[in-house]
Amino acid sequence: MPDTNLNSADTALRARARRVIPGGQWGHLDASRLPDGYPQYFASAEGCHLVDVDGRRFVDLMCSWGPIVLGHRHPLVEEAAAAQARLGDCMNGPAPVLVELAELMVDLIPHADWCIFGKNGTDATTACVTIARAATGRRKVLVARGAYHGAVPWCSPSVAGVTAEDRAHLLLFDYNDIESLQAAVEQAGPDLAAIIVSAYRHDMGQKQVLPTAAFAQRVRALCDETHAALILDDVRAGFRLHLGGSWEPLGVRPDMAAWSKAIANGHPLSAVTGTDRFREAATQVFTTGSFWCGSVPMAAAVATLTELRRIDGPARMHALGERLRAGLTARAAHHGLAIDQSGPVQMPTMLFENDPEWKKGFAFCAEALRHGAYLHPKHNMFLSCAHTEADIDAVLHAADAGFRHVAR
Amino acid sequence: MPDTNLNSADTALRARARRVIPGGQWGHLDASRLPDGYPQYFASAEGCHLVDVDGRRFVDLMCSWGPIVLGHRHPLVEEAAAAQARLGDCMNGPAPVLVELAELMVDLIPHADWCIFGKNGTDATTACVTIARAATGRRKVLVARGAYHGAVPWCSPSVAGVTAEDRAHLLLFDYNDIESLQAAVEQAGPDLAAIIVSAYRHDMGQKQVLPTAAFAQRVRALCDETHAALILDDVRAGFRLHLGGSWEPLGVRPDMAAWSKAIANGHPLSAVTGTDRFREAATQVFTTGSFWCGSVPMAAAVATLTELRRIDGPARMHALGERLRAGLTARAAHHGLAIDQSGPVQMPTMLFENDPEWKKGFAFCAEALRHGAYLHPKHNMFLSCAHTEADIDAVLHAADAGFRHVAR
Repeated sequence: MPDTNLNSADTALRARARRVIPGGQWGHLDASRLPDGYPQYFASAEGCHLVDVDGRRFVDLMCSWGPIVLGHRHPLVEEAAAAQARLGDCMNGPAPVLVELAELMVDLIPHADWCIFGKNGTDATTACVTIARAATGRRKVLVARGAYHGAVPWCSPSVAGVTAEDRAHLLLFDYNDIESLQAAVEQAGPDLAAIIVSAYRHDMGQKQVLPTAAFAQRVRALCDETHAALILDDVRAGFRLHLGGSWEPLGVRPDMAAWSKAIANGHPLSAVTGTDRFREAATQVFTTGSFWCGSVPMAAAVATLTELRRIDGPARMHALGERLRAGLTARAAHHGLAIDQSGPVQMPTMLFENDPEWKKGFAFCAEALRHGAYLHPKHNMFLSCAHTEADIDAVLHAADAGFRHVAR
Repeated sequence: MPDTNLNSADTALRARARRVIPGGQWGHLDASRLPDGYPQYFASAEGCHLVDVDGRRFVDLMCSWGPIVLGHRHPLVEEAAAAQARLGDCMNGPAPVLVELAELMVDLIPHADWCIFGKNGTDATTACVTIARAATGRRKVLVARGAYHGAVPWCSPSVAGVTAEDRAHLLLFDYNDIESLQAAVEQAGPDLAAIIVSAYRHDMGQKQVLPTAAFAQRVRALCDETHAALILDDVRAGFRLHLGGSWEPLGVRPDMAAWSKAIANGHPLSAVTGTDRFREAATQVFTTGSFWCGSVPMAAAVATLTELRRIDGPARMHALGERLRAGLTARAAHHGLAIDQSGPVQMPTMLFENDPEWKKGFAFCAEALRHGAYLHPKHNMFLSCAHTEADIDAVLHAADAGFRHVAR
């Protein structure tokens, strides 16, 4: 992306960064992949608002790509974190809050008999797969084609530096396609350790697809028949759709689940939950990290999950999401534009029809940004409990400008 | 370990934890592997002191197994972290402090032309290996037998859930053994992507071994000859031995290095540094995580590294380490006990001679703990800049009680 204002603070920081950071920025927060005018650097955030380093203020519809579920710098979360920080964070063992948090997770999540914690979503998905292999003594893992389960060689969307052996025991199926799933199960034969599935199909740049009940039930039945582990990757959707796990409304419970993002409202934490059948294997697999017993993120997680339960966060985000979806539908129609909205409303995805290279999406988002809404043209977005109806209306006002721009 | 006091707060927390956490505690901070009487849970920490949940206070010689390098809750670090937290932590992109920190790393570390950040040491070692493979188009990685480079299947000390393919392209050599190194290089042939080495041989339960200059130079020469990457795993030792990297005193610079633990005085952060030759590959490999642009740990890192440079932290810890080592030598001799102290003095390792099952070590540590010093019987320990000469003397006083106990 060309930097639009050569005198901006953002431009100056990008120039400095290019010297000392490969490509200027690594990973999913690289703003060079975003529409014209999007900032790379942020000065501050509060509630559902972001301020970039040039002082522009936006209603935030990415919520840091998921972690911010109660709003930036939520007082209850930050007070809990600060109170623990005044005692100690990273010590020679955990603080008592570890036990409190593990008990809360087991209480909230119906399938969970136990819980362990890490830092990254990838830590959690990798641990689930490793525990499944340890428990079953088998190797094959079924993964949906195109699904994102993390950023290390066994699952990275990039193949740079990846060897064939890193993925030797993965077998692919198509999300929601029972026939392809059964074919993959047959291919794995007696070596099937696990099926790992995302809460819904949230591949970037594509129409999002909710799991059918028949698909979810078939995944469960196949795991039961073969004694393989059903691993639910709830890293992205967890705690936004349902506090007990995203497949609870379908009545299908996993054997293990991976959690991260929203668990501590932006504090670095991830978790694996599992059933008693996998408890012993979870003790055999060595999962650890230097900061995995840090108690400040755990205190933040207790505060976050407690508040989400108290206010029924998923229901609140659902209502906001319905308002946003209906408003976008009406405004696009008003401008004679065909859009597609998919996925759960708490995690909105809006694509233009006949826009294979997302050119309309980019133009729309760039214009909406100029009118104060930080949207994404390709990736699912995220609502938080800090958004108000007025904030959604402000987004719709900005979106209206975006649609007008695209319609011209 | 039997819980020694059935009425203690620690015992009660352990009982609760056993229900909801497999084995009661995962990973390296599992206190059941420690001598009798060691606490699992901590109430607070300050400077070089820890207080457990039963109110016992210890001089801390583990420093959270490395992260705490300036002392627990160091005011400069915590103020920098809190100031950033008042602005924002996990946002849709980094705060300007990312650029400041990357510039500081490149300034401090002679080989570093660039820097990227993660959360775990394992994130950093895995990224180094993946970048080396992407840059060279080769697969084989040489690893020292018994070395610890992280806790995922390619490098975990446990083989539970690990497949043969996870380690298909690893070749082993013996640390400091040039002949075995050359044999492994020959075995890899034209497929050699990297040699990964720890700052020194710090395998648990064994005499620690510093690298010889000849070995380090040979690693460098072999990488130069074969165009493979020399990866220095400085996760554990980094910023304690030398702020520019642990092999600087040997005059040997790596192509990439992995950093974590002490980088932000306990805040969750890791880093990869590298030379320009690997910059392009670092842009191709997709390394990311939900919290990797969190700016609070970056602000903590800037404060930590700036303070370590200002006070010459490694020199201070070296002086403290010399005092501890001399004192332990004298007191063990006084009690007629043969001990072995090895590794860098900033990261003390003390083993008893003829103690293959560490029984003397366990008895020694349990007694020293009762006298107020938190030591480790098998693993290297860690000093911090918060320790004073008086704290070291307090440790020596406790150690004297431990030696007396073992001598009886």
